[in-house]
Amino acid sequence: MTPKGAASHDRASDAAAGASFRNIRIIVAYDGTGFHGWQRQPLVPTVQACLEEAIAHVTGEPVKLFGSGRTDAGVHALSQVANLTSSCPIPLPNFIKAVNNVLPPDVRVREACEVPLSFHARYDVRSKTYRYRILQSEVCLPFLRRYVWHYPYALDRRQMAAAARRLIGTHDFTSFAASSASEDDGPEHEKANSASMTRTVFYSKVLWSAKTQILIYEVRGAGFLHHMVRNLMGTLVEVGRGKLQADDVIRILKARDRSLAGPTAPAQGLCLTRVEY
Amino acid sequence: MTPKGAASHDRASDAAAGASFRNIRIIVAYDGTGFHGWQRQPLVPTVQACLEEAIAHVTGEPVKLFGSGRTDAGVHALSQVANLTSSCPIPLPNFIKAVNNVLPPDVRVREACEVPLSFHARYDVRSKTYRYRILQSEVCLPFLRRYVWHYPYALDRRQMAAAARRLIGTHDFTSFAASSASEDDGPEHEKANSASMTRTVFYSKVLWSAKTQILIYEVRGAGFLHHMVRNLMGTLVEVGRGKLQADDVIRILKARDRSLAGPTAPAQGLCLTRVEY
Repeated sequence: MTPKGAASHDRASDAAAGASFRNIRIIVAYDGTGFHGWQRQPLVPTVQACLEEAIAHVTGEPVKLFGSGRTDAGVHALSQVANLTSSCPIPLPNFIKAVNNVLPPDVRVREACEVPLSFHARYDVRSKTYRYRILQSEVCLPFLRRYVWHYPYALDRRQMAAAARRLIGTHDFTSFAASSASEDDGPEHEKANSASMTRTVFYSKVLWSAKTQILIYEVRGAGFLHHMVRNLMGTLVEVGRGKLQADDVIRILKARDRSLAGPTAPAQGLCLTRVEY
Repeated sequence: MTPKGAASHDRASDAAAGASFRNIRIIVAYDGTGFHGWQRQPLVPTVQACLEEAIAHVTGEPVKLFGSGRTDAGVHALSQVANLTSSCPIPLPNFIKAVNNVLPPDVRVREACEVPLSFHARYDVRSKTYRYRILQSEVCLPFLRRYVWHYPYALDRRQMAAAARRLIGTHDFTSFAASSASEDDGPEHEKANSASMTRTVFYSKVLWSAKTQILIYEVRGAGFLHHMVRNLMGTLVEVGRGKLQADDVIRILKARDRSLAGPTAPAQGLCLTRVEY
């Protein structure tokens, strides 16, 4: 194991001071509509700040939450993972209820369990799964409006599926990263070289539900660059529209040039659905 | 057919004045969260006012919309039906797009078609179907919070189903009406005697989805009294909790006494799903 940074050092010094700490891993769902993303920022509501405040209220201690990674403003999560250390002895089922009682209803703690002190929600990530949903029906039902990109125009799903398959593997994803790639979201072993734009995609698939008229792009990878999933989605839509061919994806990857890929798909269609350790 | 009241008279006099009128039936979905119900009221946002304003903007004429019936503040609709007369010659597919362009995203026109001038969305109703959704899981996902009653306590669904079956038929529903029963929502032939609390329920069933942990109460009737579905739901929950027996429903119906039935279930779990003519 590589050194874990400030978090572990804090825990070590606290432990040395005699407190009995637990490392608690929580699974969190949130509706990103009202938040400026996961990460705490001054003056704006964020999911992290909201959770830290609720947990501090329940445990009576200041708390620092480590998320598996950031999500952008407006992006949702079904199962974001985070961890915190606490000396508060409250049983975890009660902890979940008490925190949810304090949280606004657009953030919910779904599960909480105790994990070894060495566990870190960001550094230990093995894979993350995102789902992007595009609603193809003419009219967007009000109940879906916050959770889909409403795109009621023809898309060639077969071409999109072919392009999605070509993204699987280890590639330099510079062409699909936000122009300011500072908000890198890779696991520690990939971040070691902080300039690396190389990421590994394990799974990349376009699914279609005729019943709901929703096209789903599901992608699982070891880590993602900032805006990477939304840029992949925007590019797959260009393929679906016939503006790009499926094989162009390979050309775009090789060129390492953001200007060749498609636009960034809107935030509200994206959801972090799973984090694996 | 009985006389149709002011609406038809308006149409007749307008037609006499030489204008070429169409009667347009629209199917509307809305998220009731931000509205004080369907019916236009001073000073507060309502679905009817919102639609009338959008349609008037598109057609360039003042418009009066006739809904199939009112829905309460916070209640949703998947397929509310309404009609309006207009001399605007815009093709209906364009009408739908133009109106949806002006509407806020929590109200959508799903369909529009031309119907005989005699059609009236309220007076001609044959049946309405409502669905009430109770989420039984411990934690309420943020994406569901506006559309369910979160009730994470044990319910005897078999007893609730038995009680629901006993509601089928023609009964005096005084015990399940709002104390101020002025906001009656029956079709014209039942409203003829405005004091009548008799309604006919065709279908009344408790369904369960183990996957989503959602209990659905679906009820179809010729018309419903104000708060009737929510009061039926509140009473079925009392049966599910063991506070009432399934057969008590019959006793409560016969007593015509609101105080014997259960509480009014929260608005946000209710959705008008279908109106038949």
